[in-house]
Amino acid sequence: MTAELLLADYVRDSRDRIVGSLVDYLRIPSISSDPEHHTDVWDSATHTVDLMRGAGLENLDVVHVDGLPAAYGEHLGAGPDAPTVLVYGHHDVQPVDPLDQWTSPPFEPTFVDGECRARGAIDDKGQVLYEIEAVRGLLQRDGRLPVNLKFLIEGEEESGSPTFERILTTHRERFACDAVVVSDTGMIAPDVPSICVGMRGLVGFTLSVRVADSDLHSGVFGGAVVNPAHVLARVVADLHDADGRVAIPAFYDDVHEPEPAEAASLAALPFDEAAWRRDGANIRAVGGELGRSILERTTTRPTADVTGIGAGYQGAGLKTIVPAEGTVTVTFRLVPDQDPVAIGRALRTWVAARMPDGMEWSLTPRGGIRPMVTPISTPEMGALSRAIERVWGVAPLFTREGGSGPEESLGRVLAAPVLFLGVGLPGDRIHAPNERMVMDQFWRGLLAAGELFSELGKVES
Amino acid sequence: MTAELLLADYVRDSRDRIVGSLVDYLRIPSISSDPEHHTDVWDSATHTVDLMRGAGLENLDVVHVDGLPAAYGEHLGAGPDAPTVLVYGHHDVQPVDPLDQWTSPPFEPTFVDGECRARGAIDDKGQVLYEIEAVRGLLQRDGRLPVNLKFLIEGEEESGSPTFERILTTHRERFACDAVVVSDTGMIAPDVPSICVGMRGLVGFTLSVRVADSDLHSGVFGGAVVNPAHVLARVVADLHDADGRVAIPAFYDDVHEPEPAEAASLAALPFDEAAWRRDGANIRAVGGELGRSILERTTTRPTADVTGIGAGYQGAGLKTIVPAEGTVTVTFRLVPDQDPVAIGRALRTWVAARMPDGMEWSLTPRGGIRPMVTPISTPEMGALSRAIERVWGVAPLFTREGGSGPEESLGRVLAAPVLFLGVGLPGDRIHAPNERMVMDQFWRGLLAAGELFSELGKVES
Repeated sequence: MTAELLLADYVRDSRDRIVGSLVDYLRIPSISSDPEHHTDVWDSATHTVDLMRGAGLENLDVVHVDGLPAAYGEHLGAGPDAPTVLVYGHHDVQPVDPLDQWTSPPFEPTFVDGECRARGAIDDKGQVLYEIEAVRGLLQRDGRLPVNLKFLIEGEEESGSPTFERILTTHRERFACDAVVVSDTGMIAPDVPSICVGMRGLVGFTLSVRVADSDLHSGVFGGAVVNPAHVLARVVADLHDADGRVAIPAFYDDVHEPEPAEAASLAALPFDEAAWRRDGANIRAVGGELGRSILERTTTRPTADVTGIGAGYQGAGLKTIVPAEGTVTVTFRLVPDQDPVAIGRALRTWVAARMPDGMEWSLTPRGGIRPMVTPISTPEMGALSRAIERVWGVAPLFTREGGSGPEESLGRVLAAPVLFLGVGLPGDRIHAPNERMVMDQFWRGLLAAGELFSELGKVES
Repeated sequence: MTAELLLADYVRDSRDRIVGSLVDYLRIPSISSDPEHHTDVWDSATHTVDLMRGAGLENLDVVHVDGLPAAYGEHLGAGPDAPTVLVYGHHDVQPVDPLDQWTSPPFEPTFVDGECRARGAIDDKGQVLYEIEAVRGLLQRDGRLPVNLKFLIEGEEESGSPTFERILTTHRERFACDAVVVSDTGMIAPDVPSICVGMRGLVGFTLSVRVADSDLHSGVFGGAVVNPAHVLARVVADLHDADGRVAIPAFYDDVHEPEPAEAASLAALPFDEAAWRRDGANIRAVGGELGRSILERTTTRPTADVTGIGAGYQGAGLKTIVPAEGTVTVTFRLVPDQDPVAIGRALRTWVAARMPDGMEWSLTPRGGIRPMVTPISTPEMGALSRAIERVWGVAPLFTREGGSGPEESLGRVLAAPVLFLGVGLPGDRIHAPNERMVMDQFWRGLLAAGELFSELGKVES
């Protein structure tokens, strides 16, 4: 990094305070998918507002519509002629099980080998914090901001953002902006900066089946009762065809291949399968859609994955039963222009055809995020490219992320281009034990946010 | 029941004490498949020995060979010319989950509508107790027994009897007998007494698969990683063919149809599907082998059933992961002359062919009990028929049980015919919440045991 960067002095002088602030933020167990942690999510929203206040943001608020709260703050001092930028992130986190695989407690941040290890370190509190600190640094340096800034930090991202679109539409005027900066993604490697231009959508479904009121003796009833585990297995086994493609009718009807320029960029990306396997907790077995690269399989192609399945006795020893019931949750990653609602409709018909006569079953949708892509050629994307090149010293490549956020809603409801400034790395173990933030990336993120706000101030609106 | 029954006065005079003794016995949580309950299984063995002592049995012992203990006691006062009968049962019980479905705590016996509700009430402590009480009653009445009696009450039956055969072979001389009476089975209905003539064998296998050290983000890695839940589902889905037959090669090679006389008896048995469904905790969906009756499917035909499957996140909400690992346990019910070892060998080859390249997996055998059948024409079977007819007032029918016990070992190692005196009923909810003993059946079992010992005393050895 070079001395000319706007926030270089700020980072040098405020380093210890900022680390302390990161630790405090990561201590809050704001697991949004677990009702027992909902008060923690509220605490986390309040804490986020406090962080914004400390940075100099105003009109602070905790915003919610029947769900968990987002934190909001703004600084409109750049005036009506300057562009307005809305920064998006989330303050809720994933569950932490299996707890015994963490090398340190998930909500007691620990610094090891230049990493900060904690649930939420990279996904997404760390990335929220460097954006807020960039505002603080710019205000401290200049007494003003190069753009009008709005911060909207969600509290339900890790549980599928069930009310986020309603929050957006309810406060559409308040959140109006010329560009959205999403701070929740990653890049290829510390020395290969990249910009995400799209994200897969997500829709999940929980299928529950029941054959009896309680478990049955497998000797007495086994052989004549439809086993719920067998029914679930048939559904899961049928999900993919022999070529690894999702077998639900019409699933691929709305799938578009990337534009040639993006496809070429994707094909040119460096990819080290051994490193990828290692970063993926030592992946033993690679699979997926026949005739597609691993990068395609994880970014531009849709998927179906079981995220959890359970039936019968899973404890120590043998319990000779036919389980009374079973449950499986399947999530689909979607690509433009697949529609979560249409997928759900097709799935229900397809599942119904696999249910034995008399079987009791239910299919419950979970979440629903549309896929999205931002065109590469906008002036805002140019601003982001320059900011990243200035901090990392090399021009960024363009990628897509395989994961899902509510970015599609942001772009659609606010009618603004969505830019992804994200410093995550492939080995960050998000959603898994020992999630981390590489601290070098954190500081670069803070510097890059400062450069980006400055560059966006120069874009003609 | 008629006044001429040997133990009618004993039952009338000792009723309250015997009920108290049953309650004490059922209070011990002797779950053999759970290591945390192994001290309870030892307590239960000692308690069983105390019950035998109280009845007048001698040479008491707690017998074990590297595993959980059996209780042993004998009374050899009938002399060397009288037949010797070994009574078999077990004092260990099944696990109790799901605990929230019990209407009263599983180890606090509760009497409701003529039933005693508790884990182990019918399987098998209640059935052990009436045999012991029959001895006590006969000794109290006559000061002697019509046969030499040995009691061997196992402590590992509900975890697949892993060391029972070694106990038998180690003490083969001590346990030598002319007939085995197994007290761990049931009959068709309270007014339709029946005798079990065979039992299915059992062998279980736990398949564990792993693709990574920890769970993976389904957005980042989903689509390119082999999902362990999908691998397990493929195995389970392939277990049966379209006709509901087990699809493992050579699985049916050693399966024999019952002899014509037994097949005719089976076909003549009363069967009320509505009642069977109701007794099976309101079974919603009937399945199984095409072209076979429900009675055949559950007694004379072999099966494969998943008893438990688990992978990924099973808590509340959505966790967007590809699970790192998954586990499924499959148990096979076997019929004469299927061999558990040969089945295991065939399964391993068959599973290996379904494992993706690189997948980490293991297949662990659990238990292994051979199937067995006792010929209907032996004099000992005649003695049992007469004993039952005398107590129930009608001649018994002949059936097989679908469940498994170590009865095959008993008959083979001790070279003696195995007789089943069992009073269980289809609605007893064994291995499930709210297991019960219908108390009328308990008293009839006690009376029938007295009659049986007397009848066996008259059989020429």
